[in-house]
Amino acid sequence: VPESKPAALRRLLEGDRVVRVIGAHNGLSARLVEWCGFEAVWASGFELSTSCALPDASILTMSEALDAARTMNEAVSIPIIADCDTGFGDTANVVHMVRRYESAGIAGVCIEDKRFPKLNSFVEVGQELISVDAFADKIRAAKRAQRDPDFVVIGRTEALIAGLGVEEALERAAAYADAGADAILVHSRASTPQQIWAFMARWSLRLPVVIVPTTYRASLAELERHGVRVVIHANLGIRAAAKAMRETFMELQAAGWVTPGIEDRIASLDELLELQGMRDLIASRQ
Amino acid sequence: VPESKPAALRRLLEGDRVVRVIGAHNGLSARLVEWCGFEAVWASGFELSTSCALPDASILTMSEALDAARTMNEAVSIPIIADCDTGFGDTANVVHMVRRYESAGIAGVCIEDKRFPKLNSFVEVGQELISVDAFADKIRAAKRAQRDPDFVVIGRTEALIAGLGVEEALERAAAYADAGADAILVHSRASTPQQIWAFMARWSLRLPVVIVPTTYRASLAELERHGVRVVIHANLGIRAAAKAMRETFMELQAAGWVTPGIEDRIASLDELLELQGMRDLIASRQ
Amino acid sequence: VPESKPAALRRLLEGDRVVRVIGAHNGLSARLVEWCGFEAVWASGFELSTSCALPDASILTMSEALDAARTMNEAVSIPIIADCDTGFGDTANVVHMVRRYESAGIAGVCIEDKRFPKLNSFVEVGQELISVDAFADKIRAAKRAQRDPDFVVIGRTEALIAGLGVEEALERAAAYADAGADAILVHSRASTPQQIWAFMARWSLRLPVVIVPTTYRASLAELERHGVRVVIHANLGIRAAAKAMRETFMELQAAGWVTPGIEDRIASLDELLELQGMRDLIASRQ
Amino acid sequence: VPESKPAALRRLLEGDRVVRVIGAHNGLSARLVEWCGFEAVWASGFELSTSCALPDASILTMSEALDAARTMNEAVSIPIIADCDTGFGDTANVVHMVRRYESAGIAGVCIEDKRFPKLNSFVEVGQELISVDAFADKIRAAKRAQRDPDFVVIGRTEALIAGLGVEEALERAAAYADAGADAILVHSRASTPQQIWAFMARWSLRLPVVIVPTTYRASLAELERHGVRVVIHANLGIRAAAKAMRETFMELQAAGWVTPGIEDRIASLDELLELQGMRDLIASRQ
Repeated sequence: VPESKPAALRRLLEGDRVVRVIGAHNGLSARLVEWCGFEAVWASGFELSTSCALPDASILTMSEALDAARTMNEAVSIPIIADCDTGFGDTANVVHMVRRYESAGIAGVCIEDKRFPKLNSFVEVGQELISVDAFADKIRAAKRAQRDPDFVVIGRTEALIAGLGVEEALERAAAYADAGADAILVHSRASTPQQIWAFMARWSLRLPVVIVPTTYRASLAELERHGVRVVIHANLGIRAAAKAMRETFMELQAAGWVTPGIEDRIASLDELLELQGMRDLIASRQ
Repeated sequence: VPESKPAALRRLLEGDRVVRVIGAHNGLSARLVEWCGFEAVWASGFELSTSCALPDASILTMSEALDAARTMNEAVSIPIIADCDTGFGDTANVVHMVRRYESAGIAGVCIEDKRFPKLNSFVEVGQELISVDAFADKIRAAKRAQRDPDFVVIGRTEALIAGLGVEEALERAAAYADAGADAILVHSRASTPQQIWAFMARWSLRLPVVIVPTTYRASLAELERHGVRVVIHANLGIRAAAKAMRETFMELQAAGWVTPGIEDRIASLDELLELQGMRDLIASRQ
Repeated sequence: VPESKPAALRRLLEGDRVVRVIGAHNGLSARLVEWCGFEAVWASGFELSTSCALPDASILTMSEALDAARTMNEAVSIPIIADCDTGFGDTANVVHMVRRYESAGIAGVCIEDKRFPKLNSFVEVGQELISVDAFADKIRAAKRAQRDPDFVVIGRTEALIAGLGVEEALERAAAYADAGADAILVHSRASTPQQIWAFMARWSLRLPVVIVPTTYRASLAELERHGVRVVIHANLGIRAAAKAMRETFMELQAAGWVTPGIEDRIASLDELLELQGMRDLIASRQ
Repeated sequence: VPESKPAALRRLLEGDRVVRVIGAHNGLSARLVEWCGFEAVWASGFELSTSCALPDASILTMSEALDAARTMNEAVSIPIIADCDTGFGDTANVVHMVRRYESAGIAGVCIEDKRFPKLNSFVEVGQELISVDAFADKIRAAKRAQRDPDFVVIGRTEALIAGLGVEEALERAAAYADAGADAILVHSRASTPQQIWAFMARWSLRLPVVIVPTTYRASLAELERHGVRVVIHANLGIRAAAKAMRETFMELQAAGWVTPGIEDRIASLDELLELQGMRDLIASRQ
């Protein structure tokens, strides 16, 4: 029997190397994450919202997020960690969500302690947290709802995003660990990783820590030194895609037809037929 | 009352300028097509299949294609032309499809005369056509099924793709026009547009002609000279996105952290918050 | 041009007769509502949740509710009023919801002043309302979001359900009318209609009133006398279906084969082939 | 570790008692099947199409059928056998379908040897079969595509439905067994079970046989005597539901309000709150 995806994710979390996870928003981007050698896919709420041209503000429903996670999961052999925002409501919604994501073969979910509906963490307004107890309840309910013991629930604190400081982040992280979380994600939008290092210095390390550098930068060596277990690059794929598409369209608009300049900057049709699995399908017909 | 999207598409088809349509696969790519000044979006079966990491071979269901078309349609104010392959089955499936796409506010659909399940036109095998009569039946059924007289049904012949020559393409196009099609799409995978020009030279021009240059190139001036009404660049967006994502991921893999080089080549978080509509949402809260 | 469904619903609301609306949860039940001569379908959250074997507690997502409403809408020629609970979150969710329901051709939506996530109104706990202002904001946002002026937004107050009395219900109804609601739904779970009659006696009648008798009964003559415009029988269909299925299964369990007794109590295969549209499909093939 | 649903279904197939399976079309009907003591649920294409008010003619997509099967699967602890018609296209569609159904936790699928798009077996026209080889290919591909060895693939022959006789049914069944099917479903619309008994008399019994009595009747004792392993009552639930809903609506139409007669014939609100799981949800909040 091959290793299940939840078991594979748990093995990564319990290993001693930094695990590198890349954000994706559809089957193609997930498959490219795997092809480029990364170890897991982050089914990013921000990427998915952007791909639907909708604000990252709890507008997309759980159904839509789950469908996208399923598509990514079918496209790769590495585990998917699904960014589930606040859990799409309160505790009863979290229970429902965990059952559905687990049934779909998703390796793990991440829920955060913001109020539903949430706003993206890089927006200056509306970063209100729910109480520690209310979120710990969500974590406990999530852990009770899962059936496969390997399924992973990551508790994410937005204490730093909400401007509440490292102390609050540590208290929340400890409470979520007590409630049964399998890992803690601590998010920051500072321009340097100092807050994160301060958090790590005082964190007991009894649970693996996940970070999502977006506004700050950190090297793998630094992450290792500070004891971070997982680094998620959560939105590079769609940012690359958006820029490339816009530039291609603008050049086409200016040129009036497809120029050699355009063709040099895009993948060939054959590469995409390979990526989408058409070559395998044709081979199987013969 | 503002002009409906089907009416807008019909106006474009009946105009006297070349209409430029760009393929998209999600809300983001559709919105970029509009932002870059094009006049309609092609909800591309190839792009959508690739984005799901599935072969372009009638594997995606009508439900999935329609959901994607809806997302694109909500993201833009320009009309969507939905690439509906063979119509997802036979005549009864086409009738059902037309009703559902029309109900969803899609401006028009394009169906092709290949056998269901089809293979992508740039694959060397499996390019089998159904009979002229069987496909003319589909067109007639589609036209009878629509309720809004402005809704557009484009009949696409794959005669050139199947290697049957310009004569066959012309006969089929004429039959589909007789059956009530609103426009004819003639597809070719030759390396030059000569086949297309040969078709145009003998086409009565009683219906607008749509082309999808992929392996051949043609300038707007040439299209105008030969009487082509609509040109669809059907897969540039996803090819640009795939290359950009892969290069970004490869550089990240090599560098071990987010480097300045990467950030220069991707859109900023702020641009995407703008594109996804977050700025509007926040403004509306104040 | 035939009358649109939103226009048909508006005409019913502005008429002077009591409009009778029946709850449904799928295409079949909606079609039976129309075949039995009723004037509109209530796409019931309670019925839909029950049909999915899920608690009526904001567990079903907007995507699922909308998909079900679409299926019902395609199945009938009468208007659908969609029970949209709290609007699936806060004001931004309401705006998104209105756009999607309107795009799908749904005639109108009903939103209520309970907190998200809500519990079914016949449960004794958890009937907490949001403030008048917060809900009036939702109504205003919904009305601004619609594009077709005929699209109907019904404001539903749960003041009586929450035990806050007729005075509070009247104040809330007036505020929701001021905010632009097209009709007011006042819900009660008393065993008699006295609360409703007390509400009607003091209601200015400037907007049509909708009621949903479930625990109390009222005749059409009474509704007319008290000035009620719309009566929704919200859950009879699924209650009838559940009992009939259970009894059929129990009898089958007891009998060990299909007995004559069962067949007398169920519709024939032919009736269902007729209801599902198979006869029309076959006729169209000939 | 609890027994997986595919393993449970396989155990039933390999047992020595007649297994009784009841058709369902949503979570509610599936849950009632389990509550009434049956051993598995048939996610019926006919029931599902009827519930959507769509002809049972390959109009519903695999996405819709799979979503419904998922909802049923989440609602019960017994295995689901999904009626997958022709497999939604040709061999490549079958492969895709098996992967998706297996990923969703469905215990097994049944595919039939009719041409896509199919018509319901009780319609007199359009009962055309594909060749034995073409269908054996589908079975082989399905078996190769599954990852969990317990996942069940049932090969269904419509030879009797197509009027080809018992000999053809036996030849096809043997070929499908050779191709790897886990069980054979032989369908008949005769008014007596004589065809089925004739089939059973000559069937080697190396694979379990499944029947779907609809126009003919058979007792459990007879099934046992003739060696049938599984009996599916495929459409009783929706036929019971349709009749009960129509009668309730007609009586309401006639009476003008909900009478004691209506209330006696429907389930109580409390029963449905119990069935939908609301009581459990409330208990978990306390």
